[in-house]
Amino acid sequence: MRTVTVLGSTGSIGCSTVDLLEQARDRYRVRALVGGRNAKKLAEQALSLNAELAVVADEAAFDELRSLLSGSSVKIACGRQAVIDAAALPADWTMAAITGAAGLEPVLAAVKNGRSVALANKEALVCAGDVMLRAVAEAGATLLPVDSEHNAVYQSMADRQVSQVEKIILTASGGPFRKSSLAEMEAATPGQALKHPTWSMGAKISIDSATMFNKGLEVIEAARIFNLPESQIDVLVHPQSVVHGMVQYTDGSLIAQMGSADMRIPIAHTLAWPERMATTSSRLDLAAYATLEFSAPDEQRFPALRLARQALRSGGAAPAILSAANEIAVDAFLNKTIGFLDIARLVEKVMEKLGAPPADTLDAVLHWDAQARHEARNLTSTLAA
Amino acid sequence: MRTVTVLGSTGSIGCSTVDLLEQARDRYRVRALVGGRNAKKLAEQALSLNAELAVVADEAAFDELRSLLSGSSVKIACGRQAVIDAAALPADWTMAAITGAAGLEPVLAAVKNGRSVALANKEALVCAGDVMLRAVAEAGATLLPVDSEHNAVYQSMADRQVSQVEKIILTASGGPFRKSSLAEMEAATPGQALKHPTWSMGAKISIDSATMFNKGLEVIEAARIFNLPESQIDVLVHPQSVVHGMVQYTDGSLIAQMGSADMRIPIAHTLAWPERMATTSSRLDLAAYATLEFSAPDEQRFPALRLARQALRSGGAAPAILSAANEIAVDAFLNKTIGFLDIARLVEKVMEKLGAPPADTLDAVLHWDAQARHEARNLTSTLAA
Repeated sequence: MRTVTVLGSTGSIGCSTVDLLEQARDRYRVRALVGGRNAKKLAEQALSLNAELAVVADEAAFDELRSLLSGSSVKIACGRQAVIDAAALPADWTMAAITGAAGLEPVLAAVKNGRSVALANKEALVCAGDVMLRAVAEAGATLLPVDSEHNAVYQSMADRQVSQVEKIILTASGGPFRKSSLAEMEAATPGQALKHPTWSMGAKISIDSATMFNKGLEVIEAARIFNLPESQIDVLVHPQSVVHGMVQYTDGSLIAQMGSADMRIPIAHTLAWPERMATTSSRLDLAAYATLEFSAPDEQRFPALRLARQALRSGGAAPAILSAANEIAVDAFLNKTIGFLDIARLVEKVMEKLGAPPADTLDAVLHWDAQARHEARNLTSTLAA
Repeated sequence: MRTVTVLGSTGSIGCSTVDLLEQARDRYRVRALVGGRNAKKLAEQALSLNAELAVVADEAAFDELRSLLSGSSVKIACGRQAVIDAAALPADWTMAAITGAAGLEPVLAAVKNGRSVALANKEALVCAGDVMLRAVAEAGATLLPVDSEHNAVYQSMADRQVSQVEKIILTASGGPFRKSSLAEMEAATPGQALKHPTWSMGAKISIDSATMFNKGLEVIEAARIFNLPESQIDVLVHPQSVVHGMVQYTDGSLIAQMGSADMRIPIAHTLAWPERMATTSSRLDLAAYATLEFSAPDEQRFPALRLARQALRSGGAAPAILSAANEIAVDAFLNKTIGFLDIARLVEKVMEKLGAPPADTLDAVLHWDAQARHEARNLTSTLAA
């Protein structure tokens, strides 16, 4: 029996993880489940999996959790420190799926156990990459990427022949504006930008797909995970989203991972790693797809890729600044304060203003995150005026 | 320095192997080069690679080889037994690229060394599968497949998670008659059948591509190499021949190997295995390909696949009988004695007549091979009459 903890168990990735654990009850013992505020869902999961501990981050949801779990053997706790304490409990495998800055401290606590951490929190590596990688190295932990693209690259490097990797390739659906003109993109509404062609996702990540900031952040993430320079990370537009990621070796072989659009597949890979487990996820039927298309991304229409590569080369807090400015810009676009192409313009302006200061500590990262948000908000007002 | 031997060094696969060895002189010491009858090419290779021994199978070419290598340190020999003796010399890696029945005994001799054997001789596993696999197991040898499809599957199984494999998929270009009607195929000429869309190959294998007997033989080969039943081996028509082979795991992940149409890529994989080596082979540019197509094969128009699966299920000498009958039928088609669709009809008749007798020894295999050729020739005369 391997012990597991799920941080962010009531979110989308967390629910898929719980689903997989329910299908393999005999192999995993659940140490802790950590949710944000959905006490009902958290209690259901804790009872179903017979978890040792259930923690809800929002203290306002604690009474509900207590009453739902009264009489059960599940221990309960709430609040920010309880989340970090739960993450610090020794577990063979931890799913780190608390999104945003709130997930940083719990991920670091989990990493310090020195075991396997399945990473679904982009910010951990994009914004606090140096801090995270130092903690991983010090603890001797194993970072297993959950993002479908990075997980695909990880699977395609099964031989761990990292020194023989010429480049890795992340695929991108191209989003709803793949074939749109610059003029059409300038006039794009939130409604149009939210229509992702292949994956069903939240608003923030859907807009990030439309701008390709999502892919830009993934390039930064990939550089961290696989310890490769920006020049060895390619992006290929692939509208069918069937091939998730690839590795080009120095001998001319290209290894790719494909799969249906079901996050349980990469999650299952990290959960069973280095073995594999059976899932009920639908299998890819390539004959039914018939055609897979590939093209180079257009950095003219999607400047996010250029900006992300620039932030990666600059290092320090530059990626955190890009990520934070983008969050504010996306909010402003969704509120119709700025236009679609203004998102990248605004991010670029914030990057120019703040540069690439050092970000060796979590405090420094959080400081520059706040600064970037502040600058972005100011610029938003200017653009809106 | 690893020691290597190349059986069939003057053929197409052999020349590609020598090319790779010439690019990595500091890592490989050439124990023996074995050619068929091209003394000039063999001598050139032996001098270039400073081989310890050069063997020419055809005794008539021995004098030429002797005069070309006089004054060098390369030892020379000729004849059938010398070929087998050269294969038996201990080498860390042996390329087994002598085609047809002539390659069987040398492959077995190489396998008995218990090291790595890169297998480019289809007959070894298709016709003498039981004999080969027993020898491999007894010697503790490692069989590394060179055929692009099998090599792709091998690369896609880098984790060796064989028990978690749901199925493997071999791709097929579909050949020149991929979109032809049965009536067009009935009337097809050798000239039309020889036009392979993606690979440039010899006449026999080009016709095997057009009938899809080549893919049928590869299904049998794959069953042997990967120890999988016929039901777990799929064939997918993929006209661009960019994806060579795939592995579908029980978790829903599909791993694929892709590459340009250059046999040096799979050969380099077997040569450097379990590492990888740099090659100058052209890299795959998926953006330039733009579109990859996939479809299920049509067993109505390509009965070879059905016949091969049937031979695999029957076992014993059935695959050897199918292979031998097909060779005679292809010859008859190239000589315009029979029509294109007669090839499969003739093979099916020979299979019906001879059934699936045991084939536990090389002698038994060779006996049924001869019987099948005899029956096929008789039937050819009948069809031609």
